[in-house]
Amino acid sequence: MSIQTPYLLFLGDAPDALAAKVAQGIRDWRPEFAVGQFRLEGCRADMGLPDMTLAEAKEAGVKTLVIGVANRGGMISQAWKKVLVQALEEGFDLASGLHNLLRDEEDLAAVARATGRTLHDVRVPSVKYPIADGVKRTGKRMLAVGTDCSVGKMYTAIAMERVMRERGMKASFRATGQTGILITGDGVPLDAVIADFMAGSIEWLTPDNEPDHWDLIEGQGSLFHVSYSGVTLALIHGGQPDALVLCHEPTRTHMRGLPGYSLPSLEDLRDTALAMARVANPACVVVGVSVNTHAMTPADADAYCAEVEARLGLPTVDPVRHGPARLVDALAAV
Amino acid sequence: MSIQTPYLLFLGDAPDALAAKVAQGIRDWRPEFAVGQFRLEGCRADMGLPDMTLAEAKEAGVKTLVIGVANRGGMISQAWKKVLVQALEEGFDLASGLHNLLRDEEDLAAVARATGRTLHDVRVPSVKYPIADGVKRTGKRMLAVGTDCSVGKMYTAIAMERVMRERGMKASFRATGQTGILITGDGVPLDAVIADFMAGSIEWLTPDNEPDHWDLIEGQGSLFHVSYSGVTLALIHGGQPDALVLCHEPTRTHMRGLPGYSLPSLEDLRDTALAMARVANPACVVVGVSVNTHAMTPADADAYCAEVEARLGLPTVDPVRHGPARLVDALAAV
Repeated sequence: MSIQTPYLLFLGDAPDALAAKVAQGIRDWRPEFAVGQFRLEGCRADMGLPDMTLAEAKEAGVKTLVIGVANRGGMISQAWKKVLVQALEEGFDLASGLHNLLRDEEDLAAVARATGRTLHDVRVPSVKYPIADGVKRTGKRMLAVGTDCSVGKMYTAIAMERVMRERGMKASFRATGQTGILITGDGVPLDAVIADFMAGSIEWLTPDNEPDHWDLIEGQGSLFHVSYSGVTLALIHGGQPDALVLCHEPTRTHMRGLPGYSLPSLEDLRDTALAMARVANPACVVVGVSVNTHAMTPADADAYCAEVEARLGLPTVDPVRHGPARLVDALAAV
Repeated sequence: MSIQTPYLLFLGDAPDALAAKVAQGIRDWRPEFAVGQFRLEGCRADMGLPDMTLAEAKEAGVKTLVIGVANRGGMISQAWKKVLVQALEEGFDLASGLHNLLRDEEDLAAVARATGRTLHDVRVPSVKYPIADGVKRTGKRMLAVGTDCSVGKMYTAIAMERVMRERGMKASFRATGQTGILITGDGVPLDAVIADFMAGSIEWLTPDNEPDHWDLIEGQGSLFHVSYSGVTLALIHGGQPDALVLCHEPTRTHMRGLPGYSLPSLEDLRDTALAMARVANPACVVVGVSVNTHAMTPADADAYCAEVEARLGLPTVDPVRHGPARLVDALAAV
C-alpha cells in the first residue's frame, strides 16, 4: 500500500520552482526520503540534491521514482515516458499525483506488469475503506480546519509534526491529499473517496495508537466552502479530533473559486467546527490559530496575529513566519 | 440517463411484503408507472397489480422491468436470471437497486450488449457530475434533514410532492437514494458519488427552474451521524435550500448503527442545519417538523407532535398519520 522509500525526485522539464512544489515538499519535510533528483534538459527547478542517473539512484538505494512536478496540458510527454519506462525496467516503482493516471498509459501499465513494478497514482484510493463506526480510538488527534480552502492547513500540520518530533513527542502527520501522500508515502486521497466511506477512510488513517501519540491530520476544504464542505465534515467526524487548529488567510476577499461567497469569521469557524467535532469527541478543544500572512508585511502580520490572539484568547501564529512552536505548546497542554 | 417508464414490477420470490418495498414505493408514489407485476412461484408479495407475462407487459407498453425486491444472500439466483435474460431479449431495459450490480453479471451484460438494452444499476452514478459552483439558482428548494438516518426524510418529501401537485403547485421530488431513484426513474445515488463531486451532483439534480417551482430534495444521513454527516452537508450546500423540514423519530435510543451516540435535540438540528444552510442561501428558513410516530400509540403521537409544535413554534405532523398538508401550507407561505 505505502510507497517504498527512499525516492528519486523526477523534476522533468519544470519551467520554474513552483511547478516542482511536490518535490519541494518532499525535500522540505522528508529530506531523508529525497536521495537525488532527475532533471531533463531545460529544467529550471533545483532541489539542491545530487543529479542522478537511474543507475546511480539504484546504487544509492532508491526504491521509487516520484514525479515531483506538474505536467503541462495534462499530457505525459514522450520525453517523460522514456525516463519512466526505463525506471520501471531498472526496478523502480513510480509514484504520481498527476490528474492523468500512470495506470491509464498503456505503455507504462504494460511495462509495470511485465517488470512486476507498482504504479502509485496517489489521486485515487487503493484501499477499500470501511464505513465509519464512530468507536472512540486511543491516542490523540489534531485536525487543522480552515475558513477556506488553501489557507495553510497542510503546512500547519506538517510543521507542527516537525517541532513535536524535535521535542521528542510522538507525532505523525496524516496526509489526506496527494501532495501530503507523496511527501509521507502514505495517506488517504480524501477528495476521491466514495461518499459513504469518507469518514471511515479517516478512521482507517488514524487508528488506535499510544495514549501520548498525536496524529496531525491534514485538513481539506472548509465547512463554509459549499463545493467541498462535506469532505471537511467527514474529516471532523472520522478524525474524532481532540484538538482543532483554526487556519485563516486574512487578505482573501472571497471563498476560493466562489466569487459570491465571503469568508466566515474565525469566531464562526471556531464555534461551528467545535460544535461539529464534539459530536464525535465531546472533549475536543480549539488550541490555536494558524494565520497565512504570506501577502502581508512583517509589521501587518505581527499586528494581525496579536489582534486575533487578544480577540480569541488563543495562541496565534504564522507557522512559516513565526514557527509553530506556540501551537505545539498548546497541543502539549491538552 | 433516466429509466424509461412505464414499468413491470419484478417481485421475484419475495418472502413477504417488506422484501418488496421498492415495488411498493413505486406502486404508492408513481402508480402511473406501475403497469403490472411479475411474480415467481412462492412469491408472497402482492402490489394489487395485474400479473403479467413479459408478452403481456410488452403489449401494455412497458419499457423497463424493475427489480422491486431485495435478493437473498446478495446473489442473483438462476430463477431470477431466466426472467431477466428473457426480458432483455423481449426488448425491456432492466433497473435495479441491488448491491450486486446487474452489469457485473456476465450473462446479463452480454445479452444487454447483444440486444442493445440498458442495465440501470441505480446504486452507481451514471453521470460525470460537476464540482459545485455555488451560484444561486432560480426556483425554490426544500430539503428534509434528520436528527438521524432513516427517520422518514424520503417519505416526507415525496408525500409533500403529492399534496402540492394535488393543489396545483409545481413540485418535483428529487431522489438522492436508490429507492427514490427507482420510484421516480431519475436522481443521484449520492452515497456512491466521489467526495469532490457530492455538492455538484445536487446542483445538477436541482437546476434552475420556474420561480414558483419547488424541488423537494430527499435528505440523506444526518449532520449528527458521524458515518454519513459529510453526505448530509453536501446536500445542504449543493441543494441551497430555501426551506428545511426537520425529521425525527422520537423512540430511537441511539443513532442508527452507533450505540455510543445519542440523538441531538430538534433544537440542535434546527440551529445547526439552518446555520449551515444559510452559508449557501441566507434566506433559508425552517418551515416545520416531520415526526415518524410509527412506534407510538395514536394518543402518544398526537401528544408528542403537539408538544414539539408548542416548543419549537413550527407546524409538526407525522406525514403518514396526519398527512403532510400543514407542512405544505408552511412551504407555500415561504
